[in-house]
Amino acid sequence: MEDLKEKVCAANKMLPDHHLVTFTWGNVSAIDRKTGLMVIKPSGVEYDDMKAEHMVVVDPDGKVVEGKLNPSSDTATHLVLYRASPDIGGIVHTHSSYATIFAQANMDIPAQGTTHADYFYGDIPCTRQMTDAEINGAYEHETGKVILETFEKRKLSFTQIPAVVVASHGPFAWGKDPFEAVHNAVVQEEAARMALFVLLLDPKGGKIRQTLLDKHYLRKHGANAYYGQKSGGEHA
Amino acid sequence: MEDLKEKVCAANKMLPDHHLVTFTWGNVSAIDRKTGLMVIKPSGVEYDDMKAEHMVVVDPDGKVVEGKLNPSSDTATHLVLYRASPDIGGIVHTHSSYATIFAQANMDIPAQGTTHADYFYGDIPCTRQMTDAEINGAYEHETGKVILETFEKRKLSFTQIPAVVVASHGPFAWGKDPFEAVHNAVVQEEAARMALFVLLLDPKGGKIRQTLLDKHYLRKHGANAYYGQKSGGEHA
Amino acid sequence: MEDLKEKVCAANKMLPDHHLVTFTWGNVSAIDRKTGLMVIKPSGVEYDDMKAEHMVVVDPDGKVVEGKLNPSSDTATHLVLYRASPDIGGIVHTHSSYATIFAQANMDIPAQGTTHADYFYGDIPCTRQMTDAEINGAYEHETGKVILETFEKRKLSFTQIPAVVVASHGPFAWGKDPFEAVHNAVVQEEAARMALFVLLLDPKGGKIRQTLLDKHYLRKHGANAYYGQKSGGEHA
Amino acid sequence: MEDLKEKVCAANKMLPDHHLVTFTWGNVSAIDRKTGLMVIKPSGVEYDDMKAEHMVVVDPDGKVVEGKLNPSSDTATHLVLYRASPDIGGIVHTHSSYATIFAQANMDIPAQGTTHADYFYGDIPCTRQMTDAEINGAYEHETGKVILETFEKRKLSFTQIPAVVVASHGPFAWGKDPFEAVHNAVVQEEAARMALFVLLLDPKGGKIRQTLLDKHYLRKHGANAYYGQKSGGEHA
Repeated sequence: MEDLKEKVCAANKMLPDHHLVTFTWGNVSAIDRKTGLMVIKPSGVEYDDMKAEHMVVVDPDGKVVEGKLNPSSDTATHLVLYRASPDIGGIVHTHSSYATIFAQANMDIPAQGTTHADYFYGDIPCTRQMTDAEINGAYEHETGKVILETFEKRKLSFTQIPAVVVASHGPFAWGKDPFEAVHNAVVQEEAARMALFVLLLDPKGGKIRQTLLDKHYLRKHGANAYYGQKSGGEHA
Repeated sequence: MEDLKEKVCAANKMLPDHHLVTFTWGNVSAIDRKTGLMVIKPSGVEYDDMKAEHMVVVDPDGKVVEGKLNPSSDTATHLVLYRASPDIGGIVHTHSSYATIFAQANMDIPAQGTTHADYFYGDIPCTRQMTDAEINGAYEHETGKVILETFEKRKLSFTQIPAVVVASHGPFAWGKDPFEAVHNAVVQEEAARMALFVLLLDPKGGKIRQTLLDKHYLRKHGANAYYGQKSGGEHA
Repeated sequence: MEDLKEKVCAANKMLPDHHLVTFTWGNVSAIDRKTGLMVIKPSGVEYDDMKAEHMVVVDPDGKVVEGKLNPSSDTATHLVLYRASPDIGGIVHTHSSYATIFAQANMDIPAQGTTHADYFYGDIPCTRQMTDAEINGAYEHETGKVILETFEKRKLSFTQIPAVVVASHGPFAWGKDPFEAVHNAVVQEEAARMALFVLLLDPKGGKIRQTLLDKHYLRKHGANAYYGQKSGGEHA
Repeated sequence: MEDLKEKVCAANKMLPDHHLVTFTWGNVSAIDRKTGLMVIKPSGVEYDDMKAEHMVVVDPDGKVVEGKLNPSSDTATHLVLYRASPDIGGIVHTHSSYATIFAQANMDIPAQGTTHADYFYGDIPCTRQMTDAEINGAYEHETGKVILETFEKRKLSFTQIPAVVVASHGPFAWGKDPFEAVHNAVVQEEAARMALFVLLLDPKGGKIRQTLLDKHYLRKHGANAYYGQKSGGEHA
């Protein structure tokens, strides 16, 4: 658990390095699948001052089992996602500018090129707007549920599309561990930036050909991957 | 008063760190409610060279009571705002790019998402154009008055909407002290940046649902706030 | 002359600091009005390696009178401008992104707000396209002449509008010395950036009211200026 | 060969310095024309950790003849380009944001100004979409072939237009050595950025006059060049 706290702390500190956060507007968590415990950033703490000992450990119901600070207010959203997919080992939530623009525009981040296709096997979905009942209810828990609903209705895989934008809110990304989650969040932001300007040039343009999407995604992921030094890795 | 000069100087130096200013284009002030005296940045001095001793102290009529330099040319505008609301303890004025774009476009910065809603309980208003008489009169004083008129006519609260853009000019932001004012100015700029691109994608789109605006603003502000380590704090 | 070479070298080195240049794409010059000699950056030399001794001194006909390197290829353009106005003491030419966008779009940089009005008393003009004869003739000299024609036809003052964009090419800015020229080039770039996005939001919008333009320009420039610590200075 | 490995390593490390790459998304290669061997960056290795000894040497068929790591997955594309033109000594591939936007929009980067014209003698072409057969075949090799087809059909010269964007993918640039290739990649990105915003202002605007394109390109390249300290060099 100490090791996981170190990793979660380090992954959180990567957010400002990658220009994904202003102030404390982001959080990274990780799960220990053996115990079911989640480690997450405390709420409202500066990245510069953050140490592993500040990380908060919560049980699957969100109850704090270790740590003196309050966990991130998004804790319940993270827990819903971990419960939904055993392949998720780390989760990132930020208000990064370009992904948030898509959230505020209620638009998917469209798969337009190989940069996107190397990481995401299709459009990164935008959820529907949450209802008044959901917002006024267990809001953070319901935020997780509307993400699940989006993936279920559109038959998406959490491993093939490791990110989402929540309407009027902002992006979440995930991965097998907190570092891969941060990596995916960086790609999501860059894919959003490029897609935004393509849409401004041509509102209906830019969609990637299915064959090319298949090629790029599958040369890096799955049984027949041939990219990088072993498996996985990055484009170029 | 020496302590307040240190704070105002430090808050001014945060402006270039947050990329809110080019050259000396910004100023931060604070008020000492006991004496009614205001501390403000001198006019046209470089941030790098600035020391607490350069700060200028003026009385409620704008008369310099301490300091060898001329106060910021916007002094009269700051004074009008402090008089209007006892909750304002610090004020920032800059020409930050994205907020100024809204000022130049004569447009409110629309509340489009939770990033905005965590700090501003609705659109950040743009004032009307000032009249020739106002511009040719006591211009900086009239600038403050047109801000007040905007808040009065639209029934806005200075604590719930701690920022404005002055038409054809640029943004002002405020808070309970000069640091919170700078913080709000940073959020205003980022909210403006994201709203700009959403409007370019969809000129009528992006407005946040009222329930979600309520939820995010009120979970952080007011009697029932539950965000951060105590009260206030930031999203995530 | 050694002093002027130091200043011109220092002013050239400010261009990358203000993000106005990529590689060596910019040059600053200054004139010594007593001798009529101009000091200018050599062509194609890296800013990091540049020393005062590399600066090239040319006479009013562009003949090198001191220095081992070739002067900037834009030398003839600078000379035309110095000849046109005795108030010009320093000139900057860059390919800074946003001003160049206006050059490539064949559009004036419109006066939209007080940021612009504090430095430029109206729109920053874009020249007409140069003719084939001008381009195939003494091109760099003709570039200067088309700038003069623009100012003459539109009855503009070189001191009140200390910048221009040359169609399909890029910006020039000037001032009483090379440092003021660089300062104006920075403002021109920022004014262009903000105007660009206002025009994207509203192609016909954003023009500043004449009274406000008068107010801001004249409170900083001319006999009745009251801004800064003495005269001149910057907004805020 | 050791010398070329040092150069290729150094040129690769320039990519993050010029903000052309995120993570490891880019690669630079160079060819030794005497032996026909190509040196290229290994696949998926971090720029910070990269040393000359990590560079991979391949023969004209792409077979590794030196180096312990896998070569870049784009190796076959590079080889096709080296075979096509004896003037190409170095090649760069990145996913730099603005050039990739044109790739994703399936648009040429139009020649709009002298910044572009100083390096590229006309529009930087975007290839056609690759067919399913090409994508499912020897994909990286076919990527090179579709670049060749583009240059042949449009009668373009690899020396006069030292860059391309591959549809739905991203940019390639080249030069007489790996450093010139990186230089051209930087210009391509900046030209793309400026052209993008000109097209947003005016979808049909911005094309440079042919005479001006001739003038700027030819004063720097070819027999009659007069720019810089000797030949070649940069604008200003």
